[in-house]
Parts: sequence; structure tokens; C-alpha cells
Amino acid sequence: MKAKSFAAPSSKKPLEYYEFERREPKSTDVEIDIHYCGVCHSDIHTAKGEWGEVAYPCVPGHEIVGIVTRVGKSVKHFKPGDRVGVGCMVGSCGTCEACKKGYENSCFNETVWTYSSKDPVDGTDTKGGYSTLIVVPEHFVLHLPKSLDMAQAAPLLCAGITTYSPLRHWKIGKNMKVGIIGLGGLGHMGVKYAKKMGAEVWVITSSKAKEKAAKAYGAKGIIVSTSKEDLARAAHTFDFLLDTIPSGHDVTPYLSLLNVHGTLCLVGPIEPMPGFHSGMVINGQKSIAGSGIGGIKETQEMLDYSAKYNILPEIEVIQIQDINKAWDALIGKKMSKRYVIDMKKSFPQK
Amino acid sequence: MKAKSFAAPSSKKPLEYYEFERREPKSTDVEIDIHYCGVCHSDIHTAKGEWGEVAYPCVPGHEIVGIVTRVGKSVKHFKPGDRVGVGCMVGSCGTCEACKKGYENSCFNETVWTYSSKDPVDGTDTKGGYSTLIVVPEHFVLHLPKSLDMAQAAPLLCAGITTYSPLRHWKIGKNMKVGIIGLGGLGHMGVKYAKKMGAEVWVITSSKAKEKAAKAYGAKGIIVSTSKEDLARAAHTFDFLLDTIPSGHDVTPYLSLLNVHGTLCLVGPIEPMPGFHSGMVINGQKSIAGSGIGGIKETQEMLDYSAKYNILPEIEVIQIQDINKAWDALIGKKMSKRYVIDMKKSFPQK
Repeated sequence: MKAKSFAAPSSKKPLEYYEFERREPKSTDVEIDIHYCGVCHSDIHTAKGEWGEVAYPCVPGHEIVGIVTRVGKSVKHFKPGDRVGVGCMVGSCGTCEACKKGYENSCFNETVWTYSSKDPVDGTDTKGGYSTLIVVPEHFVLHLPKSLDMAQAAPLLCAGITTYSPLRHWKIGKNMKVGIIGLGGLGHMGVKYAKKMGAEVWVITSSKAKEKAAKAYGAKGIIVSTSKEDLARAAHTFDFLLDTIPSGHDVTPYLSLLNVHGTLCLVGPIEPMPGFHSGMVINGQKSIAGSGIGGIKETQEMLDYSAKYNILPEIEVIQIQDINKAWDALIGKKMSKRYVIDMKKSFPQK
Repeated sequence: MKAKSFAAPSSKKPLEYYEFERREPKSTDVEIDIHYCGVCHSDIHTAKGEWGEVAYPCVPGHEIVGIVTRVGKSVKHFKPGDRVGVGCMVGSCGTCEACKKGYENSCFNETVWTYSSKDPVDGTDTKGGYSTLIVVPEHFVLHLPKSLDMAQAAPLLCAGITTYSPLRHWKIGKNMKVGIIGLGGLGHMGVKYAKKMGAEVWVITSSKAKEKAAKAYGAKGIIVSTSKEDLARAAHTFDFLLDTIPSGHDVTPYLSLLNVHGTLCLVGPIEPMPGFHSGMVINGQKSIAGSGIGGIKETQEMLDYSAKYNILPEIEVIQIQDINKAWDALIGKKMSKRYVIDMKKSFPQK
């Protein structure tokens, strides 16, 4: 089936219209008519070749929501008409210890990412959700709970799970003080989840102007990261810091905010992170941790949790023809909501 | 009381004999006749000014074992004749949250280190255990269990607690695979504790020659850190790595050994640690943690545990007149046991 898409023809050029063939669903595949796709900063990093070489044209997009159109004959859990989601990955070895435990995102052999990854099923480079159609192995398709709005659900597949998973793993709950560093697409979801889990939540940001939004999402207040007074006042008080900064930065001032046994968790793939004085973690038995999206089982749990508690991202719906402008806004840090592409409006059917 | 000591007269000069006055015990103080003092690499770093400015003459030594000679009138838990130990600290604020929870080593105000720290009790610079006498507030004095040999017990006060505390905090036990990076004064204690706690222990070292010693201490084997084959074979298999390397180093090859949710724990105050790709912790939800000695309560627990299970360091007893030679051997990495100064033999009583 032909899929209408927008793709980067090279690392330097803007995205443009592109048509390509999706494979016929194999026995374990699910074919999805894409309705919405969120726009993630990773799309830009990848398409611009900032995370290593990729094959062009590159079709980004890994916050995909749509309706099942066809399923392979072995598919058990999906049928045409089902509302579904696809996140950052569409394959993994399935046999390593990580996969067996449900951490397909940390597959010891190699996770197959939703775009610009080598697909072992058909040998092509995977192509993402800036497109009208996608074919994905059943194991990597998520059920969209009934109450979730399709457009708002899209960013949950990356921004949602990326913040939900570490908050769960480090057992965020009552009597904990949690800081969310950065209030963008990830950060605002982190605030909402951490608040719902019972923690006292603060936003740590360089921008005083974000105080109102932070509080609206559930934060008790903000700590201005450039203010020595703010940092000193909050020293040694945080149990957990979710660090959503998407580029290299010195973690020293943030580590000083941690209480004994506190953890700062990075969620962005950043190369390189600058060095640090080990005394910043030795003193107080602290940790600099990392977390990247989450496994399939946990992603489904996150979708169900988000539906149950109505935790949804702030979004702005766009048409795909505006994608290059949207990317410029993201690069210029002019956007703290999540852009979501409306594929049906972008490519109206005749 | 006059204390015979060896001290560094400056950052450049060898240690030499020096006599100085210890304060009369205040009401909460314990006066200790020092019998043994272990030699720690931190002594060298501090005396040579590598960890910041210090006042000279600097009397190092924070692995102190001796006999109580006098106690202040409010002292409750010690009496003359008691066998005791003093570790890396002799004071802390006592009122912050860290102190109240028993983490005096992470005092939010300032831990008073056993040497080259400002002593709030009398305003002097603290002087350590390369000496015949020390006066220490009761709270920072440890009981030496009966069965512990005094000379062998000395290094427990730093090397022992530094390895015991993180292994306890990260709940090392059965069905866990633990790697000890480096097999020096700290590393060999780490192997013994981790083994006793029930883990499968491996030593990760650049030196193939340490295999025999590693196994003798309880390791299942070694992984040669410079061997790509060794590293590849052990990839993704460790739950916990205790990193005892005392200087800046790239943790990337070690992080690749960690299983999902694994932790690498630094125990050396290293400035700076080189930067890293956050992908090394994001992929697998891993942590780079730190741990520095331990609180007083846990140090007592470690002494009791070491006595109960007869876990003791490998030592070589020297006289203090040989201290400069011993330091040279440590600097040249020619010593994997722990030097312990015999103070009684060094300064025989007439």
C-alpha cells in the first residue's frame, strides 16, 4: 500500500512530500491507518543526522495513533477498527534477558526503532509516523483506552512513557519531593504524573515566566536554576529530579538540590554530558541515572493510567504541511506544548 | 598532653617527626592512646594539597585504633581501657536531617574530618592518627569488637566502611552478580564483603596477574578491563559494580557490563570524572552512583559484621619512620595490601 508521507531528503533540507510503499502485513503484523502523530525533538535530531548517520529520505514520527485496517492471520489481540498506538519501537530480538523481562527498549541485541532503524522483518529502513499508514508487528502495537482523545494520546507514546517510566521505577509517591528540570513536552507530563503519584512537585527552570504554567500543571512552585538564592534555599531537599534537558549540561547545581540517597535521572540521549566531580554523588550516596522510554508492557500501563486519571499533554494540532515551521519553533525553544500532526486533515480523502 | 606524630611540613616535603599538644578532654570527649593507624591514599592526596588547600604541618591518618585513656564527665559509652576505633570524621552539626538520620558523613552543614578540617570544638585544624594520642567527641568513637585484631581492624575504619556501606545500601545478596573494579586496599575488602553477602563476585582489573589474589579473596574470576573479549563476554550481566579506581577514568566500558537497572558506584573523590554519553545510562535505566565512607551507626555495624564473619583486610605492619617509603609504594601502585602503622613499636615507651 502506498503511504503519503513527509520526509527529510537529506540532513540539510526541509521535509517534503514523499510517497512510498508499506509492506503487506505479514502474519504477525498490524496495518494502521494513522490519524495523528506527535512531533518529538528526537525527530529533528535524527533527521538532521545529529545522532549518527541515517538513510534518506528519513520519515520521522514515533508518537503514532490510528485505526487498525488489516491484521495478519496470527494476530490475536487486534482487529480492524481498533484504536491503537505505536511508540518509539517496532521490533527487538525477543529472546535476550531484557526483552524477556519486558524491556524491549533496552534489548541487548538491538531495538528496532520506529524510524531510521534497520527492520529485520523486510530489510528496509524503518519509516515513522509522518505518514498515512504503517505496518507494525503486533507485539509493538498498544491498545488505546476508550476515553483517550486520539490527538492528545499521541504524545503519550514518547513524552508520556519517557516521564512515567522513571517516576514508577524510582517509586515516586507520597512524602516525596520531586523536581522536574525543564518544562517542555516531557517536563509538563512529568509534573502531571509526579503530582498524581502523590509527590510534592517543583519545576526547575531557567525561565521565571513558566511559573504560572508549572502551577497549572500541578507544581507547588518553581526554582529558577540561574538563581543562587533559589538553589541554596532548596539545597538537600529533593528525593528525585527528572532531568528533561535535551542537550549537554552541567548537573552539579542540580545534584546540590538532592537529599541523601537522592537520584537525578536523565531522559535525553545526550552526547556528551560534561564531566563532574565524583564528590557530588559520593557525598550523600546520590545517583546520576538514566531512563529511556519504557517497555511495551509498561507503555500499555502508562496509557491505561493516563486514561484512568485523565493525564494528558498540552497539544497544538497542526497539518503536516506546516511541519518545517513547527520544527523551527521547537529548535528555537518557542514551544512548550506538543505539536501533533492531524494526518486526516493533512491528506483529506477524495 | 603532648602527642608524638609524623606530619607533612608542606605539600612538597616528606613527612617528619613533630610534637604537638592535644586538648584536654572536654566533657563529651574521649582520649585515646593510639596503637595502630592505617595508611590510606586519601592521606597522600590531602597532605600533598591535591584536594585543596590545607594548613601545615598536616598530620594525616583516619584509620585509628587504640585504647581509651580518659573520658569527659558526660561520656556514657566508653571508659578507660576500652578498645576503640576512630574513622574519617570527628564531628558534624548533629542537627541537620542527614545527621539526624545517621549520615554524619553527609552532614548538610559540614562534616569535621579527622585531619585538616576546622574543629569547631577548639578552633584548631584537626590532626589525624599518625600520632600517639587523639581526643575525639564520644559520638565519633567506635567500639572495637573483642575478636578483632587491633592492627587488622584499623583499615576497616575507612577501607572497610567505604566498601561495606554501598554494598548494603544497594542490597547486595544472593542471586546478584557484583563486580569490584580495582583490587587495592578498597577492592579486596569489597570482594570479601560482597562474597559474604551472597553475591557472585568478579574482579575487574587491568592486571591479569591479580587473578590468584582475587580468587583467594572470594572472587569467581577476573575480567581484564583492557580485553575487548572479556568485556564483550560479560556485557549486560552485572547488577552492581563497585568502582574503587582512585583517579579520573572513563566509565563507559564498565557501564556496558551492567544489566538492566544496574548501578555503578564510585567511591573515590575524583575531580574531574570525564563526561559520558547519557545513552550509556538511559539504555537499561542504569545509574552512576557514589558513596563515601558511611555514618557512625553503620560504621559500628560494619565493625560488628567484620568481627562476626572474620572479614579482615590484608595488611603489612610498618613503623612510622618508614611512612615516606610506604607512601611512595602506594603512589607507585606497588602495594595492594593496606599498610598499618604500629605506633607502640614506632615510639617505644621508656
